[in-house]
Amino acid sequence: MRSRTEQMVARLRDLRVSTTDIEASAVVSVDGLIIASDLPAAVEGDRVSAMSAAMLSLGERIAGELGRGNLDEVYIHGDEGYVLLMASGMDAVLTVLAREQAKLGLVLLEMRRAAQDLEQLVS
Amino acid sequence: MRSRTEQMVARLRDLRVSTTDIEASAVVSVDGLIIASDLPAAVEGDRVSAMSAAMLSLGERIAGELGRGNLDEVYIHGDEGYVLLMASGMDAVLTVLAREQAKLGLVLLEMRRAAQDLEQLVS
Repeated sequence: MRSRTEQMVARLRDLRVSTTDIEASAVVSVDGLIIASDLPAAVEGDRVSAMSAAMLSLGERIAGELGRGNLDEVYIHGDEGYVLLMASGMDAVLTVLAREQAKLGLVLLEMRRAAQDLEQLVS
Repeated sequence: MRSRTEQMVARLRDLRVSTTDIEASAVVSVDGLIIASDLPAAVEGDRVSAMSAAMLSLGERIAGELGRGNLDEVYIHGDEGYVLLMASGMDAVLTVLAREQAKLGLVLLEMRRAAQDLEQLVS
C-alpha cells in the first residue's frame, strides 16, 4: 500500500498528464512547507512554497479588505505563463505553474478536481 | 476641454457601464497612490491603492522567481467576488472589483481595452 505522500504525488502527476499546459505543481501548507510536489528539476521546491505562502497571506488580506469574502483562488499571469493557487481544504494550497498558452478554463477545472482529491489525503 | 483626470474618471465610468459585473475601479500608481477612481462610497480609495501596490509588488516578485516573465495581470477570487489587477503602461495599474457571478472573460476584455485607453492618459 502506498503512503499518503506517494498517493498525493501520484495525484499531482495525474494532474500534469491531464493537460499539456501544466508544467509543475505542489501542495503547500498554509505556513509555507511543501507537503507533496511534482516539480521539474529547474523549479526549486523551497521557492514555490515560500511564494505560495506569501501570496496566500496577501490574497486573504486583500479579499478581506476589499469585501470579496474568503479567498478561493489566485491567478498570476506573466508574459511567460501563469502561477495558479487554489485552496485544498483549510490547511493547504495547490500551486500550479502553467504555460503562457494555457487554456485557463481547462487548467482550473482539472485543478479543482485535484484540489478536492488532495484535500482527502491532506486531512 | 476636460482635464486629464476627468477624462480618466470618465473612461472608468464607461468601463463600469460596459458590464454589470464591475462594481468599482481605480488607476493606481506603482507606488500606491490613486491617479483616478470610480468607487462607490463604501469602498475606500486608500485601501484600494495600498492593496493594489502590495499585490503588484508581490505579483512581480512571484512571476519573476517562478519563471513566468513580467507581470501582466493578477486575479484574486474570493467567495464574494474578484479583485482584478492589470498593468496600464509602465507606471500604473488598473484595479477592478467585480461581482462573484462575473463573466470573467468579458470583464478582462473590457479591462484590457480600458487599460490601453488609460495608458494614453497617464503618460
